[in-house]
Amino acid sequence: MSNSVDEQKAERHRAKMAKRKSAQDEEVAGKTVEEKGLLIVHTGTGKGKSTAAFGLALRMIGRGKRVGIVQFVKGAWHTAERDALAKFGDQVAWYSMGEGFTWETQDLARDIAAAERAWAKAVELMEDPSFALVILDELNIALRYDYLPLESVVAALKDRRPDLHVIVTGRNAKPELIEAADLVTDMTLVKHHFAAGVKAQAGIEF
Amino acid sequence: MSNSVDEQKAERHRAKMAKRKSAQDEEVAGKTVEEKGLLIVHTGTGKGKSTAAFGLALRMIGRGKRVGIVQFVKGAWHTAERDALAKFGDQVAWYSMGEGFTWETQDLARDIAAAERAWAKAVELMEDPSFALVILDELNIALRYDYLPLESVVAALKDRRPDLHVIVTGRNAKPELIEAADLVTDMTLVKHHFAAGVKAQAGIEF
Repeated sequence: MSNSVDEQKAERHRAKMAKRKSAQDEEVAGKTVEEKGLLIVHTGTGKGKSTAAFGLALRMIGRGKRVGIVQFVKGAWHTAERDALAKFGDQVAWYSMGEGFTWETQDLARDIAAAERAWAKAVELMEDPSFALVILDELNIALRYDYLPLESVVAALKDRRPDLHVIVTGRNAKPELIEAADLVTDMTLVKHHFAAGVKAQAGIEF
Repeated sequence: MSNSVDEQKAERHRAKMAKRKSAQDEEVAGKTVEEKGLLIVHTGTGKGKSTAAFGLALRMIGRGKRVGIVQFVKGAWHTAERDALAKFGDQVAWYSMGEGFTWETQDLARDIAAAERAWAKAVELMEDPSFALVILDELNIALRYDYLPLESVVAALKDRRPDLHVIVTGRNAKPELIEAADLVTDMTLVKHHFAAGVKAQAGIEF
């Protein structure tokens, strides 16, 4: 009796999973474009926007590809990831072009100049065929404060090499960028330990 | 005249940023707990749950810490990240305990046995003081299908060493787990290239 109940449960499980596998296989078979560089946007108020971009860098590195990273505003942050990625030598090119958080500088002209330098570096990396992935970390912040002309930035991202993957991170992604993107994820804050009075933790926040 | 407008704009910017900086400083000063291992959950239907966990692994590695990773169901995936992390030798301990996607196996008893083995490994890593971070990749899937007893899993996560960070990934995180967690992010799908007929890309999806 109990054995029969177990068998029925196992059979239901088998049938459900077979159906899911079949749906999965069909979905994969329905894809028509084999290779395409993706424009990826990580936005939202939650954590993981830059971190997931660095995780994708790791994946690309594991496939033997080169990754370029331009930081638009977090000059002083992500030093731990940078230290770790240094292990991969020439496979990673890292450029910290920002001057700390924008609310640390309080100088509009300097912020704009820094954003323009960072964007020039971004264009350079996107044009270099040795890179399979270019991460434009916190570019959304530079766009949000109008440090860079939105229209020409989006146009340049759309006109990138067909095989180049680009990841743009930062809160408040512009609708025009989302429209141009292939893959957009909103990292949504559900619960944060800062609210419970816990300080930023080494290895987690920085 | 135009100069004066520019100056006013710069002044407004300076004042706004100074206010933000002050709010930021106050927030940081308000934190009372210096060091605390966090229970972090990455859930949601969007991309970046596992990837952001691997990005945090990179950050921990950059700070000289050891990271343990247990994969509950994605046996065949994340091979590129695993290859890349192998570069860090003993700093990373990686255990693929799943047997591929659950809908590939269609065998309930085998899935449960695999989940139990993975959980035993997770407990072992959590008890080993050499690890600063343990990633339980796709544990949420094992909990969702009741492959593991929710109550005792959540209890074990809550009772972990006070200095241990744990990241649990996977869709459909159980409310009991979210309740126990310090930091929860929902990776929300905004737009996906699969919908436009683009196949999974090497270095991005696998």
